[in-house]
Amino acid sequence: MARSTAGESVILRAIRILEAFGPDRTALQVSEIARRADLHVATASRLIAELVSHGLLERGADREVRIGVRMWELGSRASPTLSLREAAMPYLEDLHAVVGHSVQLGVLDGNDVLFVERLTARDAVVNYSRIAGRLPLHISSSGHVLLAYGPPELRERVLGQPLDRYTAGTITTPQQLRGALEQVHRQGFALLAGHVHDDATGIAVPVRNGLGEVVATISVVVPNDGRAPAQVPALMAAARGVTRTLCAPGAGRR
Amino acid sequence: MARSTAGESVILRAIRILEAFGPDRTALQVSEIARRADLHVATASRLIAELVSHGLLERGADREVRIGVRMWELGSRASPTLSLREAAMPYLEDLHAVVGHSVQLGVLDGNDVLFVERLTARDAVVNYSRIAGRLPLHISSSGHVLLAYGPPELRERVLGQPLDRYTAGTITTPQQLRGALEQVHRQGFALLAGHVHDDATGIAVPVRNGLGEVVATISVVVPNDGRAPAQVPALMAAARGVTRTLCAPGAGRR
Repeated sequence: MARSTAGESVILRAIRILEAFGPDRTALQVSEIARRADLHVATASRLIAELVSHGLLERGADREVRIGVRMWELGSRASPTLSLREAAMPYLEDLHAVVGHSVQLGVLDGNDVLFVERLTARDAVVNYSRIAGRLPLHISSSGHVLLAYGPPELRERVLGQPLDRYTAGTITTPQQLRGALEQVHRQGFALLAGHVHDDATGIAVPVRNGLGEVVATISVVVPNDGRAPAQVPALMAAARGVTRTLCAPGAGRR
Repeated sequence: MARSTAGESVILRAIRILEAFGPDRTALQVSEIARRADLHVATASRLIAELVSHGLLERGADREVRIGVRMWELGSRASPTLSLREAAMPYLEDLHAVVGHSVQLGVLDGNDVLFVERLTARDAVVNYSRIAGRLPLHISSSGHVLLAYGPPELRERVLGQPLDRYTAGTITTPQQLRGALEQVHRQGFALLAGHVHDDATGIAVPVRNGLGEVVATISVVVPNDGRAPAQVPALMAAARGVTRTLCAPGAGRR
């Protein structure tokens, strides 16, 4: 049964409608959106019609509803990550050409790493991340870097929460995670073999802004064959290049 | 003076607030947002607070307001262009490695071409496009491709509107534009030297889906030195690769 929407703001309900969509469900029927957003069908239908009229949603010939290009544009053109993505892209490309597997740019959002760019090869090893995809901080190499160099409050919050298991290799105790984060500090990068998927190793390095703060990670996902550490110097060099570009006069203003 | 907001929906006002931001104004004071959105400061302030509470906007330590990462994520993760961008990216990278200048992926939105991906070299010739940037259809090579292969209604609408001048070379009469579009049909690509900027040549080719419909363009911006036509075969090959990837089973579902 749909919850009572009395007292709830229109904006909150519109956001719940937008949240009904995801990478695996890009087109939905109105009734399905209502169910996922926990709204009465009539309420959902009226709001969907308004969002369609403003271009934030689009209705196809099949009557299915999709996220509109306008929504993507509003979120993208002034995105706080746009200048970071533009600064990083040439280095991600170089890295991708050299490493040949998936290369990603991640930022911290809440208790997750959010991947804001991703270059992937068609024959890449399995990789759960995607553009605008998320992974929990404790299972991903990017997450370990963001935790290790992030604010102490974040670290304590994550250490105080249940750490879900993804594979036999996933870290699930605060003690293990503390140890892993200390290792990141010692070596300057995170390398996690088989924590997200048995066949993949993630390696991540910090990207710093001009103040030395860690604002993102560059990571690669390579086969779990023991040769991953050889990629670290290329990742480190790429991260320095991004920092230099971020600090250059006029960065993000082209 | 701010317009009366009576009778206007909350969603429309929220959209006007989001529209106040752009690539060159990524951080704004509340009063500036109110001015740009044509809202009373109190109204804008209340809506901004709600959008901040849901993560669609963020407030920095400097009290300036920015687009939130959540807004980018909602628009990106189920974006209709995500599978297109993911299918195209390996080919854009190859093209960028070979051509060495700016490479873009464009889609039609309204009367504009909207650039949904862009790879650029630091020493690229001047290029006005950017990720989530727009150009009018009549001045850009991508726009000519989208016009030439798009619905007749679109063509007639654009031909019936004033065609603004950007450079001495810009097409400004319907007769010239009709001639240029016929040439696109004859040769299968658009090449515009000095239409957006005197020093740059844009070349664009159509990207088709499995039904043969033109769903996007791949374009490059190269120096205006007469050697641009040599890039056409590489662009054509890249466009065919994107089509093949879009048609592959499981495309966009990785």
